[in-house]
Formats: sequence, structure tokens, C-alpha cells
Amino acid sequence: MEKNNKGINFKKSENFSEWFSQIIEKAELVDMRLNIKGFMVIRPWGATIIENMYGIYQEELEKKGHKQTFMPSVIPEENLKKESDHIKGFTPEVFWLKEINEEKLALRPTSETLYTPMFKLWIRSYRDLPLKLYQRGSVFRLDTKATRPLIRTREILWIETHNAFATKQEAEKQVQEDIEITENIMHKKFGIPFLAIKRPSWDKFAGAEYTIGSDVFMPDGKLIQQPSTHLMGQKFSKAFDAKFKNEKGEEDYLWTTAYGPAMSRILVSVISMHSDDKGLILPSSITPLHAIIIPIYSKENKNKILKESEKLKKELEKIELKVEVDNSENSVGEKFNIWEVKGVPLRIEIGKKELKNKEINLFIRDIQKKEQIKLNQISKLKKILEEFDKRIFSKADKTMQNKIENCISKKEIKDILNNKQIARINFCSADEEGIKCAEIIEKEFSAEVRGTLANKKEKSEGKCIICGKPSHQVVYIGRSY
Amino acid sequence: MEKNNKGINFKKSENFSEWFSQIIEKAELVDMRLNIKGFMVIRPWGATIIENMYGIYQEELEKKGHKQTFMPSVIPEENLKKESDHIKGFTPEVFWLKEINEEKLALRPTSETLYTPMFKLWIRSYRDLPLKLYQRGSVFRLDTKATRPLIRTREILWIETHNAFATKQEAEKQVQEDIEITENIMHKKFGIPFLAIKRPSWDKFAGAEYTIGSDVFMPDGKLIQQPSTHLMGQKFSKAFDAKFKNEKGEEDYLWTTAYGPAMSRILVSVISMHSDDKGLILPSSITPLHAIIIPIYSKENKNKILKESEKLKKELEKIELKVEVDNSENSVGEKFNIWEVKGVPLRIEIGKKELKNKEINLFIRDIQKKEQIKLNQISKLKKILEEFDKRIFSKADKTMQNKIENCISKKEIKDILNNKQIARINFCSADEEGIKCAEIIEKEFSAEVRGTLANKKEKSEGKCIICGKPSHQVVYIGRSY
Repeated sequence: MEKNNKGINFKKSENFSEWFSQIIEKAELVDMRLNIKGFMVIRPWGATIIENMYGIYQEELEKKGHKQTFMPSVIPEENLKKESDHIKGFTPEVFWLKEINEEKLALRPTSETLYTPMFKLWIRSYRDLPLKLYQRGSVFRLDTKATRPLIRTREILWIETHNAFATKQEAEKQVQEDIEITENIMHKKFGIPFLAIKRPSWDKFAGAEYTIGSDVFMPDGKLIQQPSTHLMGQKFSKAFDAKFKNEKGEEDYLWTTAYGPAMSRILVSVISMHSDDKGLILPSSITPLHAIIIPIYSKENKNKILKESEKLKKELEKIELKVEVDNSENSVGEKFNIWEVKGVPLRIEIGKKELKNKEINLFIRDIQKKEQIKLNQISKLKKILEEFDKRIFSKADKTMQNKIENCISKKEIKDILNNKQIARINFCSADEEGIKCAEIIEKEFSAEVRGTLANKKEKSEGKCIICGKPSHQVVYIGRSY
Repeated sequence: MEKNNKGINFKKSENFSEWFSQIIEKAELVDMRLNIKGFMVIRPWGATIIENMYGIYQEELEKKGHKQTFMPSVIPEENLKKESDHIKGFTPEVFWLKEINEEKLALRPTSETLYTPMFKLWIRSYRDLPLKLYQRGSVFRLDTKATRPLIRTREILWIETHNAFATKQEAEKQVQEDIEITENIMHKKFGIPFLAIKRPSWDKFAGAEYTIGSDVFMPDGKLIQQPSTHLMGQKFSKAFDAKFKNEKGEEDYLWTTAYGPAMSRILVSVISMHSDDKGLILPSSITPLHAIIIPIYSKENKNKILKESEKLKKELEKIELKVEVDNSENSVGEKFNIWEVKGVPLRIEIGKKELKNKEINLFIRDIQKKEQIKLNQISKLKKILEEFDKRIFSKADKTMQNKIENCISKKEIKDILNNKQIARINFCSADEEGIKCAEIIEKEFSAEVRGTLANKKEKSEGKCIICGKPSHQVVYIGRSY
């Protein structure tokens, strides 16, 4: 492989955009040199992180009663057209295949119009409900804005759940459970805090009754939308005539929901949240390696030290750490740099001195601290790794502090945004009536009305700071990816 | 869900085709009712089996030094065109996307033309070699023959490995290792015996130097090709100008190989090999459930028996069995039938009598045998499951017996094929010169020259039984899917 022995040339806090572009290249996460606009090659280091994310998500979904499926990657035009808001929203983003015997197929941008007709076939009565399904795979969106590696791509590696219920109440409970899943995984496993925000009506998923997104802060103060969950209500079931018999024996339309975490996008937040100017820092739940062993040898003791390294690797695997020995021909300095950029939490050096003292020389990635540990106390590494997670997670939690700034006049918005914060304002309405004010905000500040807090009713009794009409909601304004 | 309480209406040995169509529907593996020709919906029972297969394959590939990647699902036309045999072979099978700003993209039918240009970028010298990569995902082939569920579909759920080496010798060693992987998984984990057969030159992968396929017998006497491995030699590396510096410091082209197990197709062999007239029989390595607990209760003891069932489930999970309790509202008879059709190896009944005697009533799927087991000896189930696997695997191995029939004259071929066997014949040549004789066989017997044994040199000293010219090879003739 090419050597990336130069570290990152940009500072995360000063030039986030260049820092990000360099880190994903130098940590060998993705490669953008293939000649297809908006599509990526995900290299082994990035692919293993994403596979680990998939595993964690699949386990959690199964635990919550979702079952796996595989749907076609293509959707017939007639399906896609069934729900009018859906097709209106997605039409500009659809990749179409060349007709085959007049059959018009789209690459799936999302799969409501595949699942709902199957619900119609599979569900007869309330006894078949709830039905909670998911799939992992690619979706395709012909993004018309500029594409950016991992952040805005035309193929997205994601999971989508599609669920059917007998009542609106149960469907809304699922939406809440989806937020809980985001909390359990994004926050508790990946260490990424987020705000659960109900989108304004003009920004909901095309075809949904409402959408709750999770907004994550980026180092440049912008927000990135991570998993979102949607109450589809009966919109898709009506479009596809998907009915069931309820407990009273009456026919009713199914209530459906969907949830969509995108692994390739979550990786953006993992990189941006935890890493530093030296490179990646990866949480233990998803890192391909917990520890890398660097043998430091001369010609004379090479075999002995390599043997010790392999022995240590086996010891650490016994306590369920993922470990490799770097026995490549790179210099020790190059090895140090490579694994630092790649974000491995623990680096273990073994040389002549360590062998003699029956110890290892440990280097902890986030705090850049060295520590000697006796070989007979090697199980301490497990604890050290836990502390590593705690440290980087609590640091991430702190990024949320002082991020929300109350804003009582229009002219303050700009300062707040430029200060990498989001503005909390009284706003006329997050329903259709508010769209004009949202457009003003968009135009004057290049910012968006992200919506209202999902899990806390915030009543506004003032006036909309844009139009001056009575305010019905407290909304959050931010710039976003 | 719809109830499939009628069992299979066809016999596997008499009407394999109808039996197969019914079993995949009644066991709720796939659903073909979506309106897209050649594409399938894979339902939870089928998807979980396939996910288990993926897991087993990924683990084995990682163990053998392959690393995961994700490549784009699309390929630019200019890439696909680079290797002339490749584009010639695949052109009729390619799905094309409608042009976007004049960019011509194909849905990937296979990914050599994505990996090779990346090899060129990633590999500089012999020290970067070998490079062994894989991905899991879909490939797309616009099959022009009639499509059939799982057997011949336009979207295939597969794994592909793409590997680069410094020498032909190492590349050929990889081809051998691929056959070993097929043996380790297909045969040892899934219980499916196969013949490793080197394909004649006219039947190799488009762009390969040679292809070794694995042929599996179907109950109707036909063969189905399962994972195949390909020595690409330097054909793709020359087309993409992918060079490296060898140990002598000289520039040379990379030697590449590829291997492609298709999960959705392997499922066909799993179904066909092990199942019976009552439904599926699933090996323990891939079944979603090892055991299903059927509580048998009256109004009076319902709670007590359900509680005991849940307790037993937990006990069995401790010894790493995958178990569920069927507490649906279906009748006991319906439950028996559903899980029998779905192929769960062990069924456990718990009722009043069992509770009193502190035992369970066990039903073993393949031999349809009942057995009482004391609750304090429940760990025996682990052993019983091992015996179950041994039994179904050894039954499968027997299907290979007497399947190969030596054939010394052309007129015998038909009888052998009609007898559900394959014919072993002296043949002029499995290289280009033999193609005329192969066409005669195809035309007169609707059969194919499958090729020569991959791991045994069989010298022929007779005459080709088709054209009478000196025979250079012993080849195998069979009908195939």
C-alpha cells in the first residue's frame, strides 16, 4: 500500500473541511479516485468499521423484534408513483434503468413502495400485527447538489426498517422506540450525542405524516442529520390498498412507520466527533482493532520478539480484544504513524527492554500517554479500554454544552450561527404557514429551521421573531450538511 | 401471516420442479408476487438463512486473509469495456442506467473492472502483495433465459473475492484455496457435496484464463453450478495497466483471481439436498432456529406452561441453541405443520403430562422420531443436534454414489442422463477444438460438457466418442440449470 507517513496537514478546529478530506484518505477509509461521480470505494479499514456498525444495528433491531428481509434493489415505476407526495419528493433524485421490454425500473431510493404491497399480501388481520421488518443494503439517490465523500453520496450503505401496526398509537410508539434505538447505538455505543428534532412539515420525508431526525454537531458548527424515523400513518397503506381486519372484525388501513440509519453517514459523525489533528480515534465497539502490537527488534532478537508478540496477541484474544501484530517491513516510526492515523485505541510496543522487564510499553491513543504494564497484569488492558471509551464519549457529550443559544431578535441569528451554535427562537409555525419565514431564514442566513424538540413540548407564548405574528412553536435554527 | 397448513402437494422425487416451487413458498423463504421479472422478495425465514450463510463465509474469508470492502454498485462503461473478452461475455447481460450528463453506467454484473483499477492505485511493489479483498452485496444480470426463483434471478445476493499476486504460482494456489473454502463451507458446514470441475475453454468466465466450478446434483439429476473460482492471469491487469515492482526490481503485471459464492443460489442446493416431502430440513449451521417449543395448554394451565416454556428456552440458550416459543394463536396441529415445513431440526412439546413427569417430548425433524427427555438431561439436545447434522450430511453424501457412469459410445449418453447420472467420456479436447463436439452433445442430448476433474489428472488414451479423433481429455457430461 502507499505509505501515509505524513500525518494530517490541517487542523480540525481551523479547517475542518480539508482535515476531513485528508483523514478519510490517510486513514484509508475510502478512495474517491474511481471515475464515478458520487460513488465511493470503501477500503478495508472503513469497510470493517461499517460492517461492525451493521452488526450492532442488526443485533439491536432483532432484539426489538424486527426481522431481516432482502428486497429487490429496483422498483417498478408504477409502485413508485402510487403515493403522490412520495413520487413528487423523490422524482428528481431517482436513477432510472434503461427500459427492458417497456418495463420502467428505478434504483430504489428507499423501499416503502416495495414493502407496502407485500404488507398487503402478508397481513390479513390484527393477529398478523405488528410486523416489523428490516433490510441492509444500498439505496441510490441522484443528489443534485455537490457530492462529498461519505457525507453526500449517490449510493448509501444503510439499514431501513418498515413496520406495520393496527393503530396509530402503536405506530407512534414505534417512532419513539426508533429514537430509543438511536440513543442506544449512536450515543451509547458510538459515543455520538444528538438532538431528536421533529422536522417542520416542509422538511419531512416525502410521504410521511411527520419525521423525527437526529441532528449531530460537526466541528464546524454545522449539523448533520443522522437516523430519522417517520410516521407514515395510513398514507402508503391507502395508496396500496393495504387493509387488515381489526379486533372488531372491521376493515382498516395499516398504520406504517420507517426508520433509516445510514452506516456510511454515521461514519462521518464518528470521524468528526472523536478524532484529532493526528488522525482517527475509534470507539472500541466499532474499531477493527483494539490494539496493535509493534515489535521492536534488531537482527539478533527478531525471531524471539516476533514470537513473544504473537504469544501476547493470543493472550489478548483470550480476553476478547481484537489485536494484530504489525510485522510489515515498515520502520517503527512509520508503524507508529500509520496506526495513530487509523485510530487504534491502544498501541503496544515490545522490544528488548520490555522483554527483559517482563512488561509492555503501552501508548493510549486519545491522551497520547505512555504506560508500562507487567505481562502478568495484561488483563488490565480491558479496563484501560473501557476508560478510553468513557473519556472520548464524555468529551463528545461536552460538545453539546452551550450549543443552544436563546435568540430573541432576528439580527442575533447570524452571530449565533457564526459562533458555531444553533439558535432557539419563537417561531410562527412549523406547519405550512411558517414556510415563508423559513425561506427568509434560509435566504438571509443560509440556515434552516431544523424543527421542534421531539421529546419535550416547548410552548411558545411570544411572537415569531421573523414575521412578528403570534408564535406557536419554539424551533431550532442551524446550518446543515 | 397467511397460514400454510396444507403441507407440500408434490413429491420431491416425482415432480421436483413443482415441489421446489411449493416448498419455497410454504416455508416462507421467498415471495415472487412482486411485479418485477426476475427479482425476488426474500422473507425473514429465507433472509435469516442467507444472513447466516454470509456470516459463515465472511468468517472463513477473514480467516484466510481476505479483507472486506464495499465497491460501487455501478460501473462506468469505459471500465467495463477495457477487457475485450469480459465485455463480449457480459454485454448481453448488463442492465444499463439512463445516462446522467452523458455518463454511461452499468449495474455491476461482477466487479473485476472496479477492483483492477484500484489494484493499480494501491499496489506498488511485491511488498504490497498478496492483496486479498472481498465484498458482500448484490450483482445484477439481465438473464435472457426464463428466470426462476432463487435458481435464475436477475439480482444475485453474493460474495465476490478479488485477489492480486506477484506470481502465477501464487495465483493458482489461491484458486486451490478457493476450492478448499468451498469444501470447508458448502460440504462441511452446509452438507452439500460437489464435484470441482475445470470448465472447458468455451465455458469459462468471460475474461479468465480458466474457471473451476463446483457442480452439485439436484434431485432431478441435473447439475447446478455453485461457487466458481477463476484464474484471471494477467488479462485484467494488462487491460488496466496494473503493474508492480517484483523482488528483482522489475516491472510486471499483477496476477489476479476471483471467487464468487452466491448465497441466494446456495440456498437452492440446501433446499434441494436435505429437504423431504414434508418440507425443509435445515442444517444446524444456518437454520434460524435449532428448536421450536410448542406449549400445549388448556385455559387452566396456560400461564404455567408458557412460563415453563420460556424457562426452558433460556436453559437452551445457555447451551447456545437458537430457540423460540410458539405462543401464537394457531392450533397445535397448525404449529406442528408450520415448523415442520420450515425445517426446524427439533420440536419440543411441553404439556401437562410433560410437566408432571419433568420431561419434554422431542420430535426430530429428519427421522420423524419422538423421544422423551428428562428436563435435567436437556443438554443432550446439543448431541442430538450433532447427530441430526451427521445423518443429513451423510445422506447427502450418498447422493453422489453411482452418479458417474463411464460411457464408451455416443448412444449410451442419453440413457445415462435419463437415469439422472452424468456420463464420463473420452473427449477430443476441452479447448477450442472440442467446441464442435460439445455443440453436437448440446443439440442431441440437451446436455453440456461440464469439463474435466479439477484435482485429478485423468489421462485419456482412447478416441473421442463424438468425432472419433484422438481423445485428450476425460470429460463429464450432464444436464444443468
